[in-house]
Amino acid sequence: MAKYVYSFNEGSKDMRDLLGGKGANLAEMTMIGLPVPFGFTISTDACRKYYEDGNEIDNAIMEEVFQKLSELEDVMGKTLGDSKNPLLVSVRSGSVFSMPGMMDTVLNLGLNDESVVALENLTENKRFALDSYRRFIQMFSDVVMDLDKKKFDEIFDSKKKEKGYDLDIELQPDDLEDIIEKYKDLYRIETQTSFPQDPKKQLVEAIKAVFRSWNNPRAILYRKLHNIDDNLGTAVNIQSMVFGNMGDDSATGVAFTRNPSTGEKDIFGEFLVNAQGEDVVAGIRTPMPISEMADTFPEVYSSLNRVANVLESHYKDMQDMEFTIEKGKLYMLQTRNGKRTAKAAIKIAVDLENEGLIDKKTAIMRLEPNQINQVLHRVFDEEDKKRVEKLGQGLPASPGAAYGRICFHAKDAEIAAENGEKVILVRQETSPEDLAGMVVSEGILTSRGGMTSHAAVVARGMGKCCVSGAADIFIDEDNKVLKAGDKILDETSLISLDGGTGEVFLGDIKIVEPKLEGDFATIMKWADEFRTLKIRSNCDSEKDSLKALEFGAEGIGLCRTEHMFFEEDRIKDMRRMILSSDSEDKTAALRRLLPYQLEDFKDIYRAMEDRPVTIRLLDPPLHEFLPSTKEDISKMAKAMNLSVEEISEKVESLKEFNPMLGHRGCRLAVTYPEIAKMQTEAIIRAAIEISKEKSIDIEPEIMVPLVATEGEMEYLRDIIKTKAEEIMKESDANLDFQIGTMIEIPRAAIVADDIAKHAEFFSFGTNDLTQMTFGFSRDDTGKILKEYLDKGILKNDPFQTIDEEGVGKLVEMAAEKGKLTRANIKLGICGEHGGDPASISFCHNLGLHYVSCSPYRVPVAKIAAAQAAIEQSEIK
Amino acid sequence: MAKYVYSFNEGSKDMRDLLGGKGANLAEMTMIGLPVPFGFTISTDACRKYYEDGNEIDNAIMEEVFQKLSELEDVMGKTLGDSKNPLLVSVRSGSVFSMPGMMDTVLNLGLNDESVVALENLTENKRFALDSYRRFIQMFSDVVMDLDKKKFDEIFDSKKKEKGYDLDIELQPDDLEDIIEKYKDLYRIETQTSFPQDPKKQLVEAIKAVFRSWNNPRAILYRKLHNIDDNLGTAVNIQSMVFGNMGDDSATGVAFTRNPSTGEKDIFGEFLVNAQGEDVVAGIRTPMPISEMADTFPEVYSSLNRVANVLESHYKDMQDMEFTIEKGKLYMLQTRNGKRTAKAAIKIAVDLENEGLIDKKTAIMRLEPNQINQVLHRVFDEEDKKRVEKLGQGLPASPGAAYGRICFHAKDAEIAAENGEKVILVRQETSPEDLAGMVVSEGILTSRGGMTSHAAVVARGMGKCCVSGAADIFIDEDNKVLKAGDKILDETSLISLDGGTGEVFLGDIKIVEPKLEGDFATIMKWADEFRTLKIRSNCDSEKDSLKALEFGAEGIGLCRTEHMFFEEDRIKDMRRMILSSDSEDKTAALRRLLPYQLEDFKDIYRAMEDRPVTIRLLDPPLHEFLPSTKEDISKMAKAMNLSVEEISEKVESLKEFNPMLGHRGCRLAVTYPEIAKMQTEAIIRAAIEISKEKSIDIEPEIMVPLVATEGEMEYLRDIIKTKAEEIMKESDANLDFQIGTMIEIPRAAIVADDIAKHAEFFSFGTNDLTQMTFGFSRDDTGKILKEYLDKGILKNDPFQTIDEEGVGKLVEMAAEKGKLTRANIKLGICGEHGGDPASISFCHNLGLHYVSCSPYRVPVAKIAAAQAAIEQSEIK
Repeated sequence: MAKYVYSFNEGSKDMRDLLGGKGANLAEMTMIGLPVPFGFTISTDACRKYYEDGNEIDNAIMEEVFQKLSELEDVMGKTLGDSKNPLLVSVRSGSVFSMPGMMDTVLNLGLNDESVVALENLTENKRFALDSYRRFIQMFSDVVMDLDKKKFDEIFDSKKKEKGYDLDIELQPDDLEDIIEKYKDLYRIETQTSFPQDPKKQLVEAIKAVFRSWNNPRAILYRKLHNIDDNLGTAVNIQSMVFGNMGDDSATGVAFTRNPSTGEKDIFGEFLVNAQGEDVVAGIRTPMPISEMADTFPEVYSSLNRVANVLESHYKDMQDMEFTIEKGKLYMLQTRNGKRTAKAAIKIAVDLENEGLIDKKTAIMRLEPNQINQVLHRVFDEEDKKRVEKLGQGLPASPGAAYGRICFHAKDAEIAAENGEKVILVRQETSPEDLAGMVVSEGILTSRGGMTSHAAVVARGMGKCCVSGAADIFIDEDNKVLKAGDKILDETSLISLDGGTGEVFLGDIKIVEPKLEGDFATIMKWADEFRTLKIRSNCDSEKDSLKALEFGAEGIGLCRTEHMFFEEDRIKDMRRMILSSDSEDKTAALRRLLPYQLEDFKDIYRAMEDRPVTIRLLDPPLHEFLPSTKEDISKMAKAMNLSVEEISEKVESLKEFNPMLGHRGCRLAVTYPEIAKMQTEAIIRAAIEISKEKSIDIEPEIMVPLVATEGEMEYLRDIIKTKAEEIMKESDANLDFQIGTMIEIPRAAIVADDIAKHAEFFSFGTNDLTQMTFGFSRDDTGKILKEYLDKGILKNDPFQTIDEEGVGKLVEMAAEKGKLTRANIKLGICGEHGGDPASISFCHNLGLHYVSCSPYRVPVAKIAAAQAAIEQSEIK
Repeated sequence: MAKYVYSFNEGSKDMRDLLGGKGANLAEMTMIGLPVPFGFTISTDACRKYYEDGNEIDNAIMEEVFQKLSELEDVMGKTLGDSKNPLLVSVRSGSVFSMPGMMDTVLNLGLNDESVVALENLTENKRFALDSYRRFIQMFSDVVMDLDKKKFDEIFDSKKKEKGYDLDIELQPDDLEDIIEKYKDLYRIETQTSFPQDPKKQLVEAIKAVFRSWNNPRAILYRKLHNIDDNLGTAVNIQSMVFGNMGDDSATGVAFTRNPSTGEKDIFGEFLVNAQGEDVVAGIRTPMPISEMADTFPEVYSSLNRVANVLESHYKDMQDMEFTIEKGKLYMLQTRNGKRTAKAAIKIAVDLENEGLIDKKTAIMRLEPNQINQVLHRVFDEEDKKRVEKLGQGLPASPGAAYGRICFHAKDAEIAAENGEKVILVRQETSPEDLAGMVVSEGILTSRGGMTSHAAVVARGMGKCCVSGAADIFIDEDNKVLKAGDKILDETSLISLDGGTGEVFLGDIKIVEPKLEGDFATIMKWADEFRTLKIRSNCDSEKDSLKALEFGAEGIGLCRTEHMFFEEDRIKDMRRMILSSDSEDKTAALRRLLPYQLEDFKDIYRAMEDRPVTIRLLDPPLHEFLPSTKEDISKMAKAMNLSVEEISEKVESLKEFNPMLGHRGCRLAVTYPEIAKMQTEAIIRAAIEISKEKSIDIEPEIMVPLVATEGEMEYLRDIIKTKAEEIMKESDANLDFQIGTMIEIPRAAIVADDIAKHAEFFSFGTNDLTQMTFGFSRDDTGKILKEYLDKGILKNDPFQTIDEEGVGKLVEMAAEKGKLTRANIKLGICGEHGGDPASISFCHNLGLHYVSCSPYRVPVAKIAAAQAAIEQSEIK
């Protein structure tokens, strides 16, 4: 027959699936001889069976429970409901994955009108006994019977009012007796039955309540948010009660074996004398730091230290413990791996390895790659932050901390920055024309737009702090005024932005610089030892390139060339090139752009030296470069000797219904091959010059964007190759270079074997590939995606984590087909997924050669790549 | 050794690949004993070898040619270049597929200073001989030596001027002698050599020239336009000359064995007495109808009729023949299957079957499905058309012929139509708000927009005549004026539109109604016998449905529900539903829309009876329904008791960057399930009511658009199913209904096995699927597509013919995966490809169950489906 109930001495930490996290660890602690109040666990199997059986507990299971209860009674020498020496138990949920506060707990079970007297006699504390009974009735009514908690609170509060008490503690035993009677009356009225005096009946109902609580709405929501399977079910832990509220020799507390904030090796936590766990949560009294136990409970303190050591060497990780001291004796109620900050996580992982408790692989596997991000950015000094006033709240669009004087226009920001001022660019939303102003600002604040707005995407790319969509801040750019609540700020005001939280503050705050040496450097070195995936970075400038190198990038996977054309001295020629209907005029404008491009690429090569650099040909729709304001249009008209109407018409005619699916990417190069030729010339010429200058061999990778057909790739490969060879001949130089493509259109993945005939590498542009595979425009579907995630229609945001079933299948198909044609084809990914750990693991398993992400994601990517390699090696 | 040259008596019509069309048919006619001047053909293999060998003719091939030449000389009893009895030959190209006028021809080859005298003596016609020589020198210089033709024309014309002649025929022998001398001088100056007197040298050079002409620019362009393989090469036909210009007992002509315009069984064509082929082309004299030969050449006429009969029974198809009469004797120079109008094609196919020459299958295979379209529409009376003045030219956006009074606004058109007037709606471009006006108009004319503009797409859907993008017509809607050249028209003017040609005329023209009985009905019946694919139609109204049934549709494959909301009494509630932020107000607006939807569906079911009807839930982005003009916005604001600013803001906020990838399709139903519920209620209730009314079993198919994930399908299936069951319970009725989806997003095809868990049918929406698979927005990429086709990057417009390599692979994948989950899943296609013959063949081969196309494409689809079935059965 199946076994459903396990005493604590029958289980172990490896039985988590069956006993839940709490139950497994209680069993483990029992097994290694730590002081755990005895008890038993009803397994998750029993919970699942409860649901299968239509919300009924099987008789055989209840028999097993009572068998274990009687063993518990034997061990404790007490009997549930006994009128002399009653056993009291707690009934707690405990699922496989931690779901803090989501499910129900019943304490002090076993109390009734008789056993409460016995408890009074045993503890010689009538008030304690009655208060325990009062709490039990209230908790049982709420949790098990689903009665309205407020009605109980009303009785309780009216008693305090009647007596003129301020604090609960002032209630006297007769007050509590009266409350208990009123509670029982209320229970009778609401349920049409008396409060159950049979402790076994109490137990059965409490177990059912815990099972039921697995499917309460907040638990369901929590699981959806954390991707936890709804079918796992919860275990139920039944444990004899110990009391931290039996007097000044009793206490309750929580402790970490190491500091969860800094990682320092020292027991850390807090405790409350003469109290039960729920008092700590209620926050009525302020707990004391655990270090003070050394004075108040010296023996228990050293016991706790001993337990901490035992647990760490046993679990080989920092532990988060709950304990109770009953009359000077330490009882352990829970242990689990402790949550920690990124900084602590890194330090603890390195320290544990140094202490010989874990090996390097384990140290790496312990880290949450996404968390690493936290330590790379500047943050506000926590103390100094308390000094300032919060103005509003936006989205944490790009991490970091920044302060500066408000500038409402990009132009103003540029002028101020030239004078050496620190500025924050404040706009309703940004557009490509604000780019130069964004570059020189310390941070960017917008009142509109989401996590994927222009401001957010560009700022993340630059590693610059950004708060977007701060809807409670009103920005009037024309009058240069910012309103937040009753505060009205102008250009003279200083503000601070926390890009990690989305907070906006009035005034400046001290900033703490990140430290990338020490433990961080150690862990990165270890990651490098295990990972096989190369990590490149997406860099559009020398500055990006240097930042990427600082973080350990091994090359550039995506150098976008469009941003380069927005600078003031270039945009005019770019516009002329687009707007002119005279072909000579067009060509002349392009020729004037060439020297700029040449310098752009030379700067990047100088930084990257002989590391691989993939440069993408011009990608965005041409209208993005065109003037939109009246002023700019009339300037352009003047410069080109055309009427404002002519320019406006041309601008209008280039607008598109669906620019995402319009005249962009390689389609620009097909219709204006001169652009591709100019860019090829700049790429090759710059590589030749810097190769000579530095005596190195630069091997540029020229990337054609948005290819959908073999024909496009073949056509452009020919144009690029011819031009490159022409330049090499002119320069009397020889250079290896590669021509490849982004795979970012579904069709390209399907015909990748044909495209690979003309492409030496594929770089998966999973941003666009996701948009087209799903038919989701990122600019438009923010709200829809949210609703899809809420309704469980999607499990993940496919723009954050690659959609393995759909988009991933296309990536896989393209990789396989590409290799069929060209066995050694170079494969990488340069979409934002290149910085997402789950997606990196997917790329590793698919056998891609590299991922490319923004400079600040490089360390995250390294850890994720190392973890993927370690996981794969362990499966083998 | 390989054989490269074939005498006419060595070939046959089945050797077309080797001998080209002309060569194969000359051989065939020779074989069946028709009077063909003898000759031989140099094969296409030789042409390919010529190119492989670097534009050189292999010696062995030339030897074969001379061998065949000497056989020809023996047969003819003449010798090339002989001073007594010279053989003259024509050298003509002839490729596998007809490329009329694209390649080169040399006539009268073999003439030189000696043989011209022999020709004079033999024909006793000095003028004829000299004129032939003059022509030969000019043709050889042009075709073979690539000399400038104009310089020869100048010599010729200045002689005529000098002598004061008007006509070429006035030139006397001494004039021609002088011209010949001057031609030879010019030849010497330009080429630094004398005009070749050696006929064999003439022949070699002429053969090379024909080979070369395969790759002249116009031939290359023609092949690109007609999808002809560039590697096929051309054959060269060398045939002894016969002369239709030897006097009044000679003639030249072309004839069809049946009337190519009507299909009537009677020899049809024209001839010119005392002339050579090129004179007919030059159009100097007007040829006579072939029937007059009965008087002028009675014997030859009966010979020609005999030949026509022989050829038809031999080729089993209507023939297009070229012939020459030399001194009263008939010679056949070419025969091929004749081109014909759709009307003729149908009549000939039916007649040939009736005559026992071909079977039904062959009759069907003879038709060009796309051509069938021609006979379904009203056309202008050809005679009456000559009476009116042409105003301008636009794109033939939707076929048919219409006339009416000009209306510049949809509203005006509605009022006029109510008064029983025929009107033409004339707009710069149309928008969904013009829909009601479009419905009542005879035809639509726009000055902007292409073949896929709103006007074009909607008009085609309605089968209504439309000319779009008539750029030379200026339309001023505000002042109600139309300008075309110097004509200025207003609301009082009548205009006529030819949707088949794009022509716009001033005034009205008599219209001829299409005839769908007789031969057309016969051929449709035959098609029904062979096809296995069902043909449904895309119909949004009762009117569409009746038209579709008239053309033989077997159900509705796509009933769009969005057009239904644009009518004036509905659009207000639709807008209220969208704009209201009050949920009760929203619901109330939807409730008011329900009765309209109910009537829409009842009308359609009444027409379609128990044939399958697939109704698609609301699909377009909501902002398409919103007011755009100031007037409409302020009306809406008034009705909703909101400010104009509030409405404008809401309208603004619903605008999208990429509406194609935005909040539309099933995403609407996920975020506003009330819409899906209302539509489900209308669909099911209408089906119940009409099932009762007509005592039939209607089984509605409810189609969810734009599904990308299993989650969407599951979520909406549940909502639809629950609602449908609720309605059935309420109505105490039982009804079979199906819930399925459009497969129109790449991801849906990839996860079709999962989607099929919740979908009973798939309908491939290949319009959107093509857009997303290619990343091409149809609205934006018209110009790019044109450039892609011109540059050969794409072979076909993927929106016209399904892209088998890319989009087709997804369709195939989805069909296979769908069947894996649900073996009997119903599969159809409802994109515009459903009316394209090549795509229909693809769907047939893939095993889809039906295609659905616009009503007017149904006959085309039936023929294409029958052809696909016949082709497949023949492969088996």
